[in-house]
Amino acid sequence: MKNKIKAECKLLSLRKTARFLKKRDNFIILTHASPDGDTLGSAYALYYGLKEIGKVAAVICPDVIPKKYGYFARTTDHVLKENSTVIAVDVADANLLGALKEEFGSIVDLNIDHHVSNMRFAKNLYLDADASSTAEIIFELLLAMKVNINDITARAIYTGIATDTGCFKYSNVNAKTHLIASMLYEYELDAAEINRIMFDTKSHALLELERQVLETAEFHFDNKCMLLCVTAEMQEKTGCSGTELEGIAVISRSVEGVEAGITIKQIGDDEFKVSLRTFPPLDASAICKMLGGGGHKGAAGATVKGSIDEVKTAVLDAVKQVMEDTYAGVNTSR
Amino acid sequence: MKNKIKAECKLLSLRKTARFLKKRDNFIILTHASPDGDTLGSAYALYYGLKEIGKVAAVICPDVIPKKYGYFARTTDHVLKENSTVIAVDVADANLLGALKEEFGSIVDLNIDHHVSNMRFAKNLYLDADASSTAEIIFELLLAMKVNINDITARAIYTGIATDTGCFKYSNVNAKTHLIASMLYEYELDAAEINRIMFDTKSHALLELERQVLETAEFHFDNKCMLLCVTAEMQEKTGCSGTELEGIAVISRSVEGVEAGITIKQIGDDEFKVSLRTFPPLDASAICKMLGGGGHKGAAGATVKGSIDEVKTAVLDAVKQVMEDTYAGVNTSR
Repeated sequence: MKNKIKAECKLLSLRKTARFLKKRDNFIILTHASPDGDTLGSAYALYYGLKEIGKVAAVICPDVIPKKYGYFARTTDHVLKENSTVIAVDVADANLLGALKEEFGSIVDLNIDHHVSNMRFAKNLYLDADASSTAEIIFELLLAMKVNINDITARAIYTGIATDTGCFKYSNVNAKTHLIASMLYEYELDAAEINRIMFDTKSHALLELERQVLETAEFHFDNKCMLLCVTAEMQEKTGCSGTELEGIAVISRSVEGVEAGITIKQIGDDEFKVSLRTFPPLDASAICKMLGGGGHKGAAGATVKGSIDEVKTAVLDAVKQVMEDTYAGVNTSR
Repeated sequence: MKNKIKAECKLLSLRKTARFLKKRDNFIILTHASPDGDTLGSAYALYYGLKEIGKVAAVICPDVIPKKYGYFARTTDHVLKENSTVIAVDVADANLLGALKEEFGSIVDLNIDHHVSNMRFAKNLYLDADASSTAEIIFELLLAMKVNINDITARAIYTGIATDTGCFKYSNVNAKTHLIASMLYEYELDAAEINRIMFDTKSHALLELERQVLETAEFHFDNKCMLLCVTAEMQEKTGCSGTELEGIAVISRSVEGVEAGITIKQIGDDEFKVSLRTFPPLDASAICKMLGGGGHKGAAGATVKGSIDEVKTAVLDAVKQVMEDTYAGVNTSR
């Protein structure tokens, strides 16, 4: 699973990235697979921005775009690959392009990202690891390009920032994040409605699934670790689909004293998606790297093969090891 | 239950409020009963601000202050009632002073509040109904007073804003709210940790209670209304205490298509606290007024006596009536 960091990846500044985009005319904008609010918000905000200055652009997503993003995700241009500049947004690793990896993985001209773990697979990279979200970067980029930001662009950017920060809740938020949010409120945003859709709307089916998932709760390592399971059977019986399950991972970290919340979701006969949420000083990405995955310090993931018990053991072993390394000599009393 | 609005209540501007405080030396700052993050954050932020300019002040809360506010709520000065100016923060109605009503209800010199429903029971009132929270007002007030804001003051203000807006999620947020948050990030804030404590920390007992509450879920009026019950038995068996249950009300509004989420919590043999959460255009305070309560457009409450079935019927009748009035001629398709 290890990707080599490309030596020939050129790091751009914000201003150079702006110039790079202004100089070109046709764009293909790629999101990562299992698209979330940030990759989609970033892609569409960039798309609308480029349209404002007369460019031709298409957004291509490796998976079906969830309906809930319909308020900003629209049909984009049809462009020819041959004469287009290929941009990836919020894509830390070529593998995350999913179904698009084979076609585009090695020909990405520009990658715009905020993941410190970025694998530098593109020819050019604008990376701001201090940004809460890639959408925050796109906002600054559009300002640097002196592009008019309209209401739908603002909505896309707000969605990216809000979803990647748990609505301004997490440690990736800083003064600039709130300042940008403040500026976005000058548009016809209806942020409360966006937040309702993103954070406070679950289907009756999901309500039922959550109830079932809560019954699988296990606590380990002095109650510092909570583990939840979402089996294939639960998903079938309730009819809850993939992206609807995103919120489950948050539950795993919501209980007092829990430092590591694990959610194991069955995605095949012997295949599970592990989602990990941790609190400082525990590093979720360090744990998921041991399982062949990656992510951020507070939220990371991996795909692990085996029976559910094998996967549980593998994940708990990894958590245990990183916990021991982390807490060695550290006073963790809260 | 009806309180008369006092004709002799004088409305102050922000600047006059600042001058009012600067001119006096001894203060008693009152919070409302069942204290939340906003009333406590406002009271302590004002206290710390007044201390910065050499005043003497005490914060008095009608109920025990929940432990989770310990990172900013400290022991305050001892002051004599006789020579003190009495201030109420975030208190819309003298009744909300709870155990302090008798002693202080009619002698409040200054009320600082953001509830549009404020009953004007104090001698002077600074009301900003556009503010997301009273804490937002206190921040502006301290700026207007040219008072130094320190880290603990910033934490108290942030807590008030975050808790009253569901962490910047609700419709009471505006550009200024985010701008103030941005300014607060310049302090040693650890907002992520505050948000963790406020929003993402539940006890094992609460996890169990939530599971039981989900089993009481009823849907009414074309699934536009969800009703949850928290019986005395559930509270006893799980050992979940009063303020721990605040989050339940949010669940009642989290299901797709639900416009009114009702939570009925037993607080006595034949007494229930009704919490209502609604989405526009439904007005929660209009519904709760019919039950002798009040609050905001999106969140309101009332205390209703009777058996659980009688209370359910009363609440559902009120919801139905306001729904019919609201939706008459309004296209509510989402």
